[in-house]
Amino acid sequence: MKIVILGCGRVGALLATMLDREGHTVSIIDQSNSSFQRLPGEFGGNEFVGNGVDEEVLLRAGIKEADAFIAVTNGDNRNIMASQMAREIFKVKKVVCRIYDPIREETYREMGLETICPTVIGAQGLFDAVTDKK
Amino acid sequence: MKIVILGCGRVGALLATMLDREGHTVSIIDQSNSSFQRLPGEFGGNEFVGNGVDEEVLLRAGIKEADAFIAVTNGDNRNIMASQMAREIFKVKKVVCRIYDPIREETYREMGLETICPTVIGAQGLFDAVTDKK
Repeated sequence: MKIVILGCGRVGALLATMLDREGHTVSIIDQSNSSFQRLPGEFGGNEFVGNGVDEEVLLRAGIKEADAFIAVTNGDNRNIMASQMAREIFKVKKVVCRIYDPIREETYREMGLETICPTVIGAQGLFDAVTDKK
Repeated sequence: MKIVILGCGRVGALLATMLDREGHTVSIIDQSNSSFQRLPGEFGGNEFVGNGVDEEVLLRAGIKEADAFIAVTNGDNRNIMASQMAREIFKVKKVVCRIYDPIREETYREMGLETICPTVIGAQGLFDAVTDKK
């Protein structure tokens, strides 16, 4: 699969590494060149410096041919906007968007965006660990 | 159960709310008073302003009587140090520590700390979503 990842923070870099190792074609975008240092030396994907809500940058990263787009910058709004562009403008089939704020996450999930909320997942995991429900 | 939570960020506040609603006695510590605004109006637990690696603060929050301690500040090192204090000095039975850095997480897990790494959980969840393994 051709996969475009927006955001090379800890999660973006680890995800890119995992997908690259599985043989997928990975493009990863980040505003800061130094973020790509999180990727291992053997990373075979392509790195793009730029703003992910800029169409030009998404096009350079190959969004038109992408099978999947994942938005994992540290900004909820940036992730939401980029995901909507990937879905609505570039018709990417699989789009997943990270949203930290549970309220915004619910809203955009109801609007049809595929979302992941680390806040809810984290709190639920800890709740289960403490109350021994896991 | 008596539960002490260190860190009233998004996850800490949500976890405190969930545990409080279930009838547990919750104490929550944060360096910043304004963090407690994340808690709902009906929150019945106790809030403590202070540094979680300070024994005095942990004692005020009732660490000696606690059945569980959860460290979810934004600093991995602070979470690790506070968790070790809870376990070694105050002999809290159930201690769970959030560590963002996967390498440090593995190290401390091997040393016997119960840890949760949002980076690994997040990347794995996204990997499964994209590759349709979930």
